[in-house]
Order: sequence, then C-alpha cells, then structure tokens
Amino acid sequence: MKAILASTSTLHGQAYLEYILPELKTHFQNCDFVLFIPYARPGGITHEDYTETARQAFSKIDIQVKGLHEFDDHAEAVREAPAIFTGGGNTFLLVSELYRNKVMPVLQESVRNGTPYLGTSAGSNIGGLSMQTTNDMPIIYPPSFKTLGLVPFNINPHYLDPDPNSRHKGETRETRIKEFHTLNSQPVVGLREGSWLEITDRVMLKGKLDARIFEKDQDAYEVQTGTDLTNLN
Amino acid sequence: MKAILASTSTLHGQAYLEYILPELKTHFQNCDFVLFIPYARPGGITHEDYTETARQAFSKIDIQVKGLHEFDDHAEAVREAPAIFTGGGNTFLLVSELYRNKVMPVLQESVRNGTPYLGTSAGSNIGGLSMQTTNDMPIIYPPSFKTLGLVPFNINPHYLDPDPNSRHKGETRETRIKEFHTLNSQPVVGLREGSWLEITDRVMLKGKLDARIFEKDQDAYEVQTGTDLTNLN
Repeated sequence: MKAILASTSTLHGQAYLEYILPELKTHFQNCDFVLFIPYARPGGITHEDYTETARQAFSKIDIQVKGLHEFDDHAEAVREAPAIFTGGGNTFLLVSELYRNKVMPVLQESVRNGTPYLGTSAGSNIGGLSMQTTNDMPIIYPPSFKTLGLVPFNINPHYLDPDPNSRHKGETRETRIKEFHTLNSQPVVGLREGSWLEITDRVMLKGKLDARIFEKDQDAYEVQTGTDLTNLN
Repeated sequence: MKAILASTSTLHGQAYLEYILPELKTHFQNCDFVLFIPYARPGGITHEDYTETARQAFSKIDIQVKGLHEFDDHAEAVREAPAIFTGGGNTFLLVSELYRNKVMPVLQESVRNGTPYLGTSAGSNIGGLSMQTTNDMPIIYPPSFKTLGLVPFNINPHYLDPDPNSRHKGETRETRIKEFHTLNSQPVVGLREGSWLEITDRVMLKGKLDARIFEKDQDAYEVQTGTDLTNLN
C-alpha cells in the first residue's frame, strides 16, 4: 500500500494542505491526476466548490485534480484512478455516500492494490476498521459503520487533549474513546492535528507530534513521531 | 405530558442532580417510585452502579428508585411504571438498547399519556425527533436514529459555545448543527448545562440560562429562560 492518513487538512493560520504539500509532492509523483472524493462536504458546500479547494492546493505542486462528481460511474472512476484523495467533512455523510454509490469496496480494493491514497480528517477516519471513533454528528444514517480497514485499528482524527480548566460536563475525547472500548476491542490512535500515518508495508507515525494510543483495558499512552504502529491490533 | 428534558445531570462542583432536585420533588410528587433506565451507562459502569447513583440523589427528596434491569420484561416495566427517569451516557448505546428491548414505543406511549418523565443528557436527547444532534461517539450501530419526539424539534444537550481562542480545526458545535441542517429540516435547541425543557401542554425553557436556537437556513439566535417553545417546528 501507499497511503497517507492525516489528522487534518489544515493547520491553524495556514492554507489548505499547506503543511503536508512537500510530502504529497513525493507521494503522488508521476500520477497523471488525483481523483478527489468530495462526498463529506464540509459545511454542506457543493462538490464543485470543494473540489476547487483541493485543486488550488495541488496546483502548487503541479498535480492535477479531478472531482469524482464529474464522472457518471463513481465506482468505475475510483477503479481507474491513478491516485485518490478523500477530503474531510462529515464522516456519516461520507460513509453513506461511499456505500450508496458502491464506491466503498472498490476504494478498498484500489488502495490495497497500491493506488496512492490520501485521506484527511473524515477521509482518514475511514482508513480505520470502522468509523466509530469519529467526532462527527450523525446527520445521516449510514447502512454500516464499517470502513476500509487499511490499518488494523481505529483512528480518531483531530485528537484533542482534555482542557484541565474546563467546567463543562460533556465527555472529554479520552472518555469517549474509553466508552468505545466498553463495546469494541480494536485499538484507537488519537492523531493530533499535524500528525499523519504513512502506510506502506509498514504503518508509521509521521509529523512533529506524539500520538495517543488507546487499547482496551489499558491506560492510554503516548508514542513519538516515527513510531512503527504496524503491529498495533 | 409531564416531562423534564435537562441538558445535564450534574453541574460543575455539584452532586448528581443537585441543581434540579427542588424541581424534581414537585415533578415526581405522589409517585410510588421512579423507574430508572440505566441503558446509556456512562463510562461503561454497570446498571447496578448507575442505578445506585440515581437512588442516592432521589433519596434526598424521599423518592424511591427502581432500576429497569431489575425487571424481567423491560417493556412491561416501562408500561407499568408510575414515573420514569432516563440517565445520560452514550446516546448510541441508549437508543440501541431501547430498540433491542422493545422499550422505545412503550416509553413513547407512556410519556405521551402523562407518565412523569425526566431525561438528562442522552436521556433528554431522545426526547427530540431524532438522536442526530447528539455529541456522542457512535460506539454501537443502532437500528434507527429516530427517537421519542416529545417535542417537535431536536435537542443538543451540553450545548457549548465556540472558544474564540481555539486554534483547533475540528468543527465547533454550531458548525456541526449547521451541517445537520444541510440534510435535515427540524429546528435544534442547544441546551446549555443548567437549562431544561419543561413539557406540559406547552414546551417551556427553564433554568437560569438562555438557549441557542438553530433553524434551517436562518442565523442561530438566543432565547431567554421562560420562553415558550411550543411552536418551534
């Protein structure tokens, strides 16, 4: 495989994908174009507008982008694509659309067979075994929570540390993931903004930050960037 | 109807239900006992432990509590209960269990027919038309997102205002609710911690705080405590 699963598309004060463009230039080199999956539609924007955002970012590294909505047969377009990028937004909507358009199994097969892939936020959440550690609101009912399983664990993008000064009684992110483990057994990787997973024959933590690992019935722990997470399952 | 839907069970620095006990003393007066629905299991605690928490709080106002798990037939227990309290925790788990035990339709009928009801957090989220404005993680796949519809809108408990100093790129609560409105039309009431809805022949906002109202294709707006929300639909 050749996949990058990134916590976020955008760092505070930066342009879309700016922090990871040097990485993407290598990742997608020699690809005729990148097929963009705009299904997650952040803020409900159109597929056209969302694809334009991706196109502008990739133009800085001279890579062409085509939107999946431009094709009649979405499954066929994914099967034939030289490279694929799934953008963030709402994971429930993304997963619903991947199933509705019969793209989910084709996308899984393509990426497993080596088509270079990038996911950010919701687009990296679906790289896990299930979407059940998303932070998103369930704005639509998907036919299943199962996702691509490019890694043998689940991903929590935009991982957020607890605020020690908070007086709010809503659950912290860590509490939510512990709740997940009362019913599910796979590990969860909390990816802070600026971190990503690089998947080849190994799964490596990349970026400047540590990640937080949650395993069922264990205390959560930190791993440094560069850690090999291949055997986390 | 005679229902209270509260944003939270607990305010910062207070005991469980402490802030709302005076209200509950009146709400549940002359009830032989309150049937507690512990399905949402915050932090994965046992049904016994969770019911004990509720029992201790209600003992301060001399009201008995029985846990739904103590009964063989859960639907029958709900049908016969003189009063009902659904505690918070994970809404996906709560809704899954309400359907699995065939309690959802019976609970709806009982409350609509006048059985005094209290919900906190997840237990008030299910008072809305659907659970789709929950903040919780989808740790289990429920058979449906539809809920009790005691009010003609959706509820977002633990409503949290955006932090103007945040550098985090995850969606704010307001952004998430706007995403909900790209696919759904019912209004959403953002209930801050310490607020509740009192449902009789009217739906009134109670507590010390304002609530935030979201209607599709409109700017969000604030309503003061004491506002009649009966016609928000």
